[in-house]
Amino acid sequence: MTPRDPAGPDGDLGGVDHERAVSRHADPEPRCQIVRTLDIVGEKWSLLVIRDALRGVTRFSDFRASLGAPSDILSARLARLVDAGILEKRMYREVGQRERPSYHLTEAGRGLQLVIASMVQWNDRFDPAPAGAASVVVDPVEGAPLALAFVDLDGRVVDPDEVAIVPGPGALSTW
Amino acid sequence: MTPRDPAGPDGDLGGVDHERAVSRHADPEPRCQIVRTLDIVGEKWSLLVIRDALRGVTRFSDFRASLGAPSDILSARLARLVDAGILEKRMYREVGQRERPSYHLTEAGRGLQLVIASMVQWNDRFDPAPAGAASVVVDPVEGAPLALAFVDLDGRVVDPDEVAIVPGPGALSTW
Repeated sequence: MTPRDPAGPDGDLGGVDHERAVSRHADPEPRCQIVRTLDIVGEKWSLLVIRDALRGVTRFSDFRASLGAPSDILSARLARLVDAGILEKRMYREVGQRERPSYHLTEAGRGLQLVIASMVQWNDRFDPAPAGAASVVVDPVEGAPLALAFVDLDGRVVDPDEVAIVPGPGALSTW
Repeated sequence: MTPRDPAGPDGDLGGVDHERAVSRHADPEPRCQIVRTLDIVGEKWSLLVIRDALRGVTRFSDFRASLGAPSDILSARLARLVDAGILEKRMYREVGQRERPSYHLTEAGRGLQLVIASMVQWNDRFDPAPAGAASVVVDPVEGAPLALAFVDLDGRVVDPDEVAIVPGPGALSTW
């Protein structure tokens, strides 16, 4: 893995330049958006870390308690997500304790709620867990259920059977 | 991996019973929809096979030519997707040739366009490939671009900042 061109002359990816908010692909860079996305969040623990972060978890010990992941794997996943511009690492210190890191979603990280919601919705429809839904997508104020839908440029919902995913301008004969 | 309870008394998952259209998780079954979905399509080649199938690819040789995947990996991924109820295997025979299998999306498989579109859209916004989009989501008749959006029960688009993914009735303290 080699880093891509940095977002700015100082290589600081920050959280503002969306065109380059996320980084680090293989060389040569894949063109397919699926490959590019899975490069960053394809490992199971990575998306679960993001799920927990969307629920407000920020501390290593809370991620570990929630996920039951081995510490070394969790550390590696957190570091990778910080590296990729999905999480931002900050330091905090509680009274009488040593300084510790906490992890906060960047804008690109918050944007992954789209990917997570798509998996929740697909699974609910085609492979529901017998014990019921572990996650639900809601309006946090009203608690009303929300869904992902395909919409046209005017915001009108389009039937999924009238949607196609086709090769775009960056497509090669292979991905 | 052990199969789950079969959809019917004869264990035939078929393509009709959406409640059990998809199968085969670890034992005990994970509850989290993200884990359940990644169980089935978390490997890179699996989602790329589905991307190609959505574009109309059905034959082994065409998947291999498009993906450049090693034959043994491609075979394993196709078998796994058939097993999981995402692809259906059919036999065909061209004049003077031996019988060969072709692979066709089930309804659960077609439903994965939601997951693929979410990755395309997230990547386009936060990590666009310098060479341009390899895949675009469109109305196949008009060619007009479509997007995924969160909508309420009345089909009204909701701002992503007003969406939360929270623990549901099947949530445990861990996933």
